[in-house]
Amino acid sequence: MTRTLTRTPAADGFHMPAEYARHAGCWLLWPERPDNWREGARPAQATFAAVAAAIARFEPVTVGVSRGEFTAARAMLPEAVRVVEMAHDDAWMRDVGPTCVVNARGEVRGVDWHFNAWGGLEGGLYFPWDQDELVARKVLEIERLARYRAPLINEGGAIHVDGEGTALVTEECLLNPNRNPTLDRAAIEQALCAYLGVRQVIWLGRGVFNDETGGHIDNLACFARPGLVCLTWTDRKRDPQFAISKDAWERLHAARDARGRPLRVVRLPMPGPLKLSAREARGLVPREGTKPRLPGERLAGSYVNFYIANRGIVMPLLDPRMDALAARRLKGLFPGRTVVGVPAREVLLGGGNIHCITQQIPAGHPSRSTSAR
Amino acid sequence: MTRTLTRTPAADGFHMPAEYARHAGCWLLWPERPDNWREGARPAQATFAAVAAAIARFEPVTVGVSRGEFTAARAMLPEAVRVVEMAHDDAWMRDVGPTCVVNARGEVRGVDWHFNAWGGLEGGLYFPWDQDELVARKVLEIERLARYRAPLINEGGAIHVDGEGTALVTEECLLNPNRNPTLDRAAIEQALCAYLGVRQVIWLGRGVFNDETGGHIDNLACFARPGLVCLTWTDRKRDPQFAISKDAWERLHAARDARGRPLRVVRLPMPGPLKLSAREARGLVPREGTKPRLPGERLAGSYVNFYIANRGIVMPLLDPRMDALAARRLKGLFPGRTVVGVPAREVLLGGGNIHCITQQIPAGHPSRSTSAR
Repeated sequence: MTRTLTRTPAADGFHMPAEYARHAGCWLLWPERPDNWREGARPAQATFAAVAAAIARFEPVTVGVSRGEFTAARAMLPEAVRVVEMAHDDAWMRDVGPTCVVNARGEVRGVDWHFNAWGGLEGGLYFPWDQDELVARKVLEIERLARYRAPLINEGGAIHVDGEGTALVTEECLLNPNRNPTLDRAAIEQALCAYLGVRQVIWLGRGVFNDETGGHIDNLACFARPGLVCLTWTDRKRDPQFAISKDAWERLHAARDARGRPLRVVRLPMPGPLKLSAREARGLVPREGTKPRLPGERLAGSYVNFYIANRGIVMPLLDPRMDALAARRLKGLFPGRTVVGVPAREVLLGGGNIHCITQQIPAGHPSRSTSAR
Repeated sequence: MTRTLTRTPAADGFHMPAEYARHAGCWLLWPERPDNWREGARPAQATFAAVAAAIARFEPVTVGVSRGEFTAARAMLPEAVRVVEMAHDDAWMRDVGPTCVVNARGEVRGVDWHFNAWGGLEGGLYFPWDQDELVARKVLEIERLARYRAPLINEGGAIHVDGEGTALVTEECLLNPNRNPTLDRAAIEQALCAYLGVRQVIWLGRGVFNDETGGHIDNLACFARPGLVCLTWTDRKRDPQFAISKDAWERLHAARDARGRPLRVVRLPMPGPLKLSAREARGLVPREGTKPRLPGERLAGSYVNFYIANRGIVMPLLDPRMDALAARRLKGLFPGRTVVGVPAREVLLGGGNIHCITQQIPAGHPSRSTSAR
């Protein structure tokens, strides 16, 4: 069913819709590797189940689970969630899942990026990543969506779009020589335009401090609607995050989107600073080839790492002193949606948050066209 | 998504439609175990791919493939076939897949039988069968169909229905003490009525000679339409199959279906007799716990083991001297369908044929009713 198409989405009249456009559903993967998820991943699994349940209030949810964990995951997940067998190397569906694109007739197809575990053998987080590399294709098979195989290394968490021609990315990630060393800025922009169907790429500098993905945009900033960007922020000038957010703020104000509009920027306060505790670090089983985690290490916590569901926002709860303020800001940004918070420190301990573990499938229907074969 | 329902299909107004009713699609599994499929299963895989391609001419086809074989299977199967990851112990989707039921409103649900590899530790064909046991559930998850967990050991190949209240089974299989030793004939009939939504069970005696499933009906006889049964037949009186087919013929003529009609019986000639060659036997890798196959062994070849697709019949080609005659008979039995033959000796070597490796999903839609939870 996965027809693999040889042209590009832009050439075929397809573009990536914004996350706030209507979804057919949402996909997640099930965490299990004990070198990344403490205590044999059981606390993380409970959190992923809570996230899946929260999203399932708003749209259909599917969770991909490895063969060995299938029955246990099925028992932990609510009945409303669909569970399918799917091997993976870790549980970051945003990064290993497909980036879906649509055309004016509502046809949906998927972009399958090459994946190298956030840097391959030059700073990547684990080895091997061969099963991650197959996840997007497997999702597209089950959803009966045709597939574009993009000729570059990229992750869903490294890109945001406004759905009206603009992409938002970071230099730290997209220009990192551990992703596409032979492509310069112009070539990356060209590839993003071809595979996301955008006309304008806005470049921020670095991602959230100590973000092990190499500065994913989805932990730093996102569109709340066209012309409106939400940015993680701290007023603590000595925090290394301050300069990063300030630089992003300035670049966003200097930028124009694909329609020539200036951007309004809303600041979301940062939680913490949050650090990995000794007890949490002790719950991990070290493995050769996996980046070790050390007690006291700064965690890249950010409220920007939320998921936009149909009529809902599912946000991480990370810091009792800041959660309510962040939730209020999100309610203001998304007046038509219900904001649901899920305690998500366990996801953060694994290196990301709710946006990183989810991937939406836009509403529409599989493309029947054969003209683009 | 798999709601597991606690009542029975019959109590909820559901029944199993006949195979000749309209399908939403067809599922197969991908053969790989080298103790059952010679030469590392490569010849069988080519045959399964040809069967999938033949059925895909008539209806959507999905093939479940284990993680390790995923990319190889994807490359061997036509693009029109959907490929999904699915662990299994062997490739008999008829027996390990769901038996779907529908109600008057076109809602579809699935029955998930218990499975013990055709006899468990008392004559079963291999050990373990834990992944087979999960296949029906996984298919229902992907298809978003609610699930009945039937409280008895059964296989899809052990039952045929006319879609109008009648089931056709064999005593050899359904009354075998290696399936449900605590259930007598009356209890088995009661369970079939409850889970297939039938009112009448017609019992034949033994299945095809040397059929290692323990006499599955689907290798011996099937309904071609209500009131019309197709029976495998030989005129060779010294063939052990002769007495079996003659007994079935007599029982069928003595029977009445659920609507009180007598049955018309059409004979399909048997291929062969076919035997396992020494070369074929040498291509197998013996494994402890798996029933060994010996050169010279009689193969349970039968043309009755065909698949009824939407507007098509996909039949095994097994014997150049008989294939054309069998195809002509099938054309006569199914005048509205195109008969497609696929050379299928490789499936027979594994212990079954095209009907055994397929399982239809009836047309309709997932049941949204929650009243039966």
